[in-house]
Amino acid sequence: MTFIDQWLRTDIRNINAYHVPSAKNMLKMDAMESPFGVPEELKDEFLEYISYSEVNRYPDANANELQATLRSLMDIPKDFGVLLGNGSDELIQLLSLACSSGELIMSFEPSFVMYELVSKFAQLNYHGMPLDENFEIDLKSTLLAIQSKKPKLIFIAYPNNPTGNSFDYDVIKEIIRSTDALVVLDEAYYAYSEKSFLAEIKNFSNLVVLRTISKIGFAGLRLGLLVGSQETIEQLNKLRLPYNINILTQVSANFLLKDRQRIVSNAKIIINERRRLYDELSLIQSLTVYPSQANFLLIKAENAKLLLESLKDSRILIKGFAISTQLENFVRISVGEAKENNVLLECIKEFYG
Amino acid sequence: MTFIDQWLRTDIRNINAYHVPSAKNMLKMDAMESPFGVPEELKDEFLEYISYSEVNRYPDANANELQATLRSLMDIPKDFGVLLGNGSDELIQLLSLACSSGELIMSFEPSFVMYELVSKFAQLNYHGMPLDENFEIDLKSTLLAIQSKKPKLIFIAYPNNPTGNSFDYDVIKEIIRSTDALVVLDEAYYAYSEKSFLAEIKNFSNLVVLRTISKIGFAGLRLGLLVGSQETIEQLNKLRLPYNINILTQVSANFLLKDRQRIVSNAKIIINERRRLYDELSLIQSLTVYPSQANFLLIKAENAKLLLESLKDSRILIKGFAISTQLENFVRISVGEAKENNVLLECIKEFYG
Repeated sequence: MTFIDQWLRTDIRNINAYHVPSAKNMLKMDAMESPFGVPEELKDEFLEYISYSEVNRYPDANANELQATLRSLMDIPKDFGVLLGNGSDELIQLLSLACSSGELIMSFEPSFVMYELVSKFAQLNYHGMPLDENFEIDLKSTLLAIQSKKPKLIFIAYPNNPTGNSFDYDVIKEIIRSTDALVVLDEAYYAYSEKSFLAEIKNFSNLVVLRTISKIGFAGLRLGLLVGSQETIEQLNKLRLPYNINILTQVSANFLLKDRQRIVSNAKIIINERRRLYDELSLIQSLTVYPSQANFLLIKAENAKLLLESLKDSRILIKGFAISTQLENFVRISVGEAKENNVLLECIKEFYG
Repeated sequence: MTFIDQWLRTDIRNINAYHVPSAKNMLKMDAMESPFGVPEELKDEFLEYISYSEVNRYPDANANELQATLRSLMDIPKDFGVLLGNGSDELIQLLSLACSSGELIMSFEPSFVMYELVSKFAQLNYHGMPLDENFEIDLKSTLLAIQSKKPKLIFIAYPNNPTGNSFDYDVIKEIIRSTDALVVLDEAYYAYSEKSFLAEIKNFSNLVVLRTISKIGFAGLRLGLLVGSQETIEQLNKLRLPYNINILTQVSANFLLKDRQRIVSNAKIIINERRRLYDELSLIQSLTVYPSQANFLLIKAENAKLLLESLKDSRILIKGFAISTQLENFVRISVGEAKENNVLLECIKEFYG
């Protein structure tokens, strides 16, 4: 037995490291990335902007300019606080560290896997409330569970990943009202969704909203933000590691996120493509396509595993799910730009003959 | 009482947020940054290299190319494992998360404040062993404390910050031998030090070495690394958040860290300047300058607070310490390039008349 086997907590040793499939020369439709990179005509200006960063100096610890840029891009009111992280992952971890060991994190199943993983890291208990067959929240059983289990933190992905739907707005409000927990609305896919809880922060003191720029064209920058009341963010900020956002992220995001018009119009393209993909895929008998408010579609598919393999052979990467789970026969497809979606559609149609 | 005041753990609420002084138009000699930026003649090539990064795609989750670059720069043997973090701060936090709540982190006082802060976040106990009057480890009392308190994790900054000295090599080996704890040698200042524990990893299964590129010219990139046996790093890697190192950090560091010759020669310049500063400051009666193996000097100074203020008026930022602490009458000065050090020297000489 090695030293580390004796030293490390069993629950961590038993984790399988997060696996990322190789994507070399693949059409990536598995990770909810935006297909739109930095436009060629902006590259020179972008690089010049970067060229002034002093990489030998620590970055602005509070990233004040970047905060202002994000507020402007996302219409975040002045009287809300903003906390930045390296992806929303770091902020999910920060929230878990705010809890005391043994307390409970609640979320829904299926949802974003990081909520459970991070609660394990922080030695918190985790309870995943099962969604119903339409992937909606069962309000009654949720309220009962909140009453009996007294969660400290509730994560609600809105829209939900990997199901793509946004849970009922009033149901979520009921949940927020019913609990002493801090409720985190994870709006990673806000740009593709019709509704948001951002404005509700002023109505509910136990509500915070989590966002990221990963799904709107900047997954490579790993930048997430938590929005809440000034008081809440000021306190949670004590758990942030100083200088957590490096200078190149600050500078690049400052430049790239000021182009709001392009970000919004790119999102519109994806929303239109989502509708087209939804319509076309729905015509295939072997598939059940679920409505989506995000930049991906969840699809129940006959021979899901074979479909996945077949697409992989055609160098298209989509997301499958582990066997013996609720989503065993499902796949999740990130919406790409038209030409990518056309290639995908052709391959899927060919597969089902 | 606001929601967050009721919700958040008292120990976190009681923290004062990490304060970073404003440095606008100041000569920064407070944060152990390197004075050397990206050379003008490299900038175009650097920017061209960056221009190929696809910011809309997630970065390489394992940062394989960057790992190889760091191995080459720091002569890390192939059979050691490497784990990357956003600064060594993220890795210190990761190590604390590997412990079970209530376990003990041990370090020495005074040392890097993050060890204690992070143990608080993770609800671990913290014990700081006081260094002796020469800022050396008292081996006997340390071994007794290890025996009675059974720490899970021991942090040893080598060289130590803020004292600048490297503790006795054999004393540290004794400590590693005496404990079941994972011993973390934090070699943030390795480039300015004569000795390292890196090669000892093969001799001690409970030893890992922490490094960063912050002090060798790249504080803005926020990149740290933990080196240990393959088995140890493979297990600890389970606690790393996926995609934690963003694409611009990966790409920039890949480019900038390949220039080993420049990094080494810049470090030599600083070591020479350190000697010169040490010699010149030692001539001033009111100062006691401590020997340093790092890119800064710890100095006991008459009227330390007034000196600090006087330098600030001259737009020079150096580091002071809180009153009623062991270092109340000390200042810490980061070694700059010759012209910066000259300005500093002149101001200090003037201050002491």
